[in-house]
Amino acid sequence: MTEPFAAVDVIRAKRDDQALSGAQIDWVVDAYTRGVVADEQMSALAMAILLNGMGSDEVSRWTHAMIASGTVMDFSGLSRPTADKHSTGGVGDKITLPLAPLVAACGAAVPQLSGRGLGHTGGTLDKLESIPGWRASLTTTQMMRQLEEVGAVICAAGDDLAPADRKLYALRDVTGTVESIPLIASSIMSKKIAEGTSALVLDVKVGSGAFMKDAETARRLAETMVALGAEAGVSTVALLTDMSSPLGLTAGNALEVAESVEVLAGGGPPDVVDLTLALAREMLAAAGLDSVDPADRLADGSAMDTWRRMIAAQGGDPDASLPQSAESEEVLAEADGVLVGMDAMAVGMAAWRLGAGRSRKEDPVSAGAGVVMHAKPGARVRAGEPLLTLHADDPTRFAGAREVLAGAVTIAPPGSRPADLPLVLERLGR
Amino acid sequence: MTEPFAAVDVIRAKRDDQALSGAQIDWVVDAYTRGVVADEQMSALAMAILLNGMGSDEVSRWTHAMIASGTVMDFSGLSRPTADKHSTGGVGDKITLPLAPLVAACGAAVPQLSGRGLGHTGGTLDKLESIPGWRASLTTTQMMRQLEEVGAVICAAGDDLAPADRKLYALRDVTGTVESIPLIASSIMSKKIAEGTSALVLDVKVGSGAFMKDAETARRLAETMVALGAEAGVSTVALLTDMSSPLGLTAGNALEVAESVEVLAGGGPPDVVDLTLALAREMLAAAGLDSVDPADRLADGSAMDTWRRMIAAQGGDPDASLPQSAESEEVLAEADGVLVGMDAMAVGMAAWRLGAGRSRKEDPVSAGAGVVMHAKPGARVRAGEPLLTLHADDPTRFAGAREVLAGAVTIAPPGSRPADLPLVLERLGR
Repeated sequence: MTEPFAAVDVIRAKRDDQALSGAQIDWVVDAYTRGVVADEQMSALAMAILLNGMGSDEVSRWTHAMIASGTVMDFSGLSRPTADKHSTGGVGDKITLPLAPLVAACGAAVPQLSGRGLGHTGGTLDKLESIPGWRASLTTTQMMRQLEEVGAVICAAGDDLAPADRKLYALRDVTGTVESIPLIASSIMSKKIAEGTSALVLDVKVGSGAFMKDAETARRLAETMVALGAEAGVSTVALLTDMSSPLGLTAGNALEVAESVEVLAGGGPPDVVDLTLALAREMLAAAGLDSVDPADRLADGSAMDTWRRMIAAQGGDPDASLPQSAESEEVLAEADGVLVGMDAMAVGMAAWRLGAGRSRKEDPVSAGAGVVMHAKPGARVRAGEPLLTLHADDPTRFAGAREVLAGAVTIAPPGSRPADLPLVLERLGR
Repeated sequence: MTEPFAAVDVIRAKRDDQALSGAQIDWVVDAYTRGVVADEQMSALAMAILLNGMGSDEVSRWTHAMIASGTVMDFSGLSRPTADKHSTGGVGDKITLPLAPLVAACGAAVPQLSGRGLGHTGGTLDKLESIPGWRASLTTTQMMRQLEEVGAVICAAGDDLAPADRKLYALRDVTGTVESIPLIASSIMSKKIAEGTSALVLDVKVGSGAFMKDAETARRLAETMVALGAEAGVSTVALLTDMSSPLGLTAGNALEVAESVEVLAGGGPPDVVDLTLALAREMLAAAGLDSVDPADRLADGSAMDTWRRMIAAQGGDPDASLPQSAESEEVLAEADGVLVGMDAMAVGMAAWRLGAGRSRKEDPVSAGAGVVMHAKPGARVRAGEPLLTLHADDPTRFAGAREVLAGAVTIAPPGSRPADLPLVLERLGR
């Protein structure tokens, strides 16, 4: 096959701050997927994109080239409207677990193709795999049947969904080219558009525990993704939400499943409940199901019922005991006062070091390991009282977790109040 | 072996426009040579260096890290002072061929480790290999003996001379990361310093047929290299020389050898003679041999004698007929007038397409192919008179050569004069 371009010319164009043509983008993404453009060429191009940027036409074309590298799913045969959510990742972010069955219980079909965790934020599949028997891999036929019968499916994305993105994502991870808004936006949206959802809500996290540390960068990412979604005919909304402290009271695989089940049972930490409901309302509105109030479905037990059927449909036992780590240790408050800060990144790193996350994608994760918080910002605490419980299979991991937690908790004099940051900072789209 | 750094952190630092530490540079160059830093990581770093630059401390450290990746030669045992020349490459640039024996005839030792051509500029080794029997590969012992006995050696650099540069150069070629002054300067100077010469003259070409199209960029490259040389204790001078039209009247391997022999015989085109003498004077001055006038050594035949011994010492027959291409075609003047422009890049591309150069480093080159010019800028020409003769082994190549030559020759009305650009534009160093 004669190639219409030379990789080095495409790299040079972006290096010299020129806009790439549609034909150049289509070719370079396709040729990279085919292995004609080598890894070392794509990483040089990715660095040039990171440093010189891409215009909105280029990002759109890049996204569609990645979609075209694989198959596009089609949910139009379902009797329910589809609605999907994507989070850019945060510490203690188990929202997908209660959210998918809740939105399904309200009448939507929720096809939640998820990934595994890498680094300090946990992966949705890793969390669910702590449920005995549950399996992440489904065929397309199984997924379709489950969407029709249960309404919600959380499973691994197939190898044929945007394979260019899969290959490029692994490359960016080792070449310092992750932090590019055009590349992040096209990576997320290529998968979501290829997934064939008709409505999409993006939860863009901002703060120490998030990938985006400041609202300005998060807003630019959100705007780029909302535009890509709208252009592809997907009804897309983005919420910018706070990730300066962890979501809920747990960070760790089985610990977060247990907390999610509490939410579905009508309890659970208020921030997890509030964000689940806020995202559910956006998903339902985007799917044209605004007349249903998800709070009712949480209260009447139908969300829990959907959860149980969703877990069982994928081989899991919703009644089984969750794995627990053999060892635990407490972190105590060092002073009397008011807890005004609990650094999300530090808690995420601690859970990772305790065994809940992985450093390389081949690494196993511990189901039981993680951090349980006994207080959230705003709470009164007393010196010597337990603030956190650390869980690990291997007690030698505690020292590393304590190391990253040093300075993570801020206690102010009695009578102080924490900065009152709302959970949902901003809303973009439709 | 535990690595002191992670490649991705070094890439991120340069991406974020930070100066790399000496330890980071030493490690990344060494780890790349060892294969611990992957090609796709080094190419991302090279792109970040190209776009964000390096400070003089970083360039110096990078150069020394590349030198340290291999062995350093030692010519201190020779009875003659060493002097070397490096050209950044131009069309028809055969200067090394007459220059090395000329400077040797004046009393210096000239260890000229050279490369093969890639693209539109010819390689010195490719040119010499058109001489029947001549071989480019010598052992270090053979090289030392020839330097002592003949005074000049032109041969291939050994694999152990700056192997980091060898690997990085091949990578940069395919990743659009060639055009970086820090990377070009460190590539050239690492080899020249590792080669162990005590005096070095740099011929930095400027113009359409050169790598550097403008004097400003060429000057920055020259300044960077002169500083690196001085710092390493090498007496270094740079001349910026014009490469808007080809040097001499030939571009092609055997054609350029024949022209070089004419110069050594006391004839040859004035521009080739002038530049050879100018560079010889600089090399002799830098080597502390200023009392000798190289023009005398050209006139008295001792330079030619040294050439013959140099060729014979490497198996070549200085009296053998040079290969000629089977086919030739003429390009005629289209008008009466004065030749005011002969575009160097177009002539170089034409010679390349005729078979004198290669596209990939595995390709063979034709010894006889190339371009002979019958007029230089300033000459009066008549319509229908031959301006160029094209030589090729395969007549199907003529069309491609004519294509790149379209518009390469500018003829002004009778009485016009070409822009009077001096051959040596500027001198930097000592």
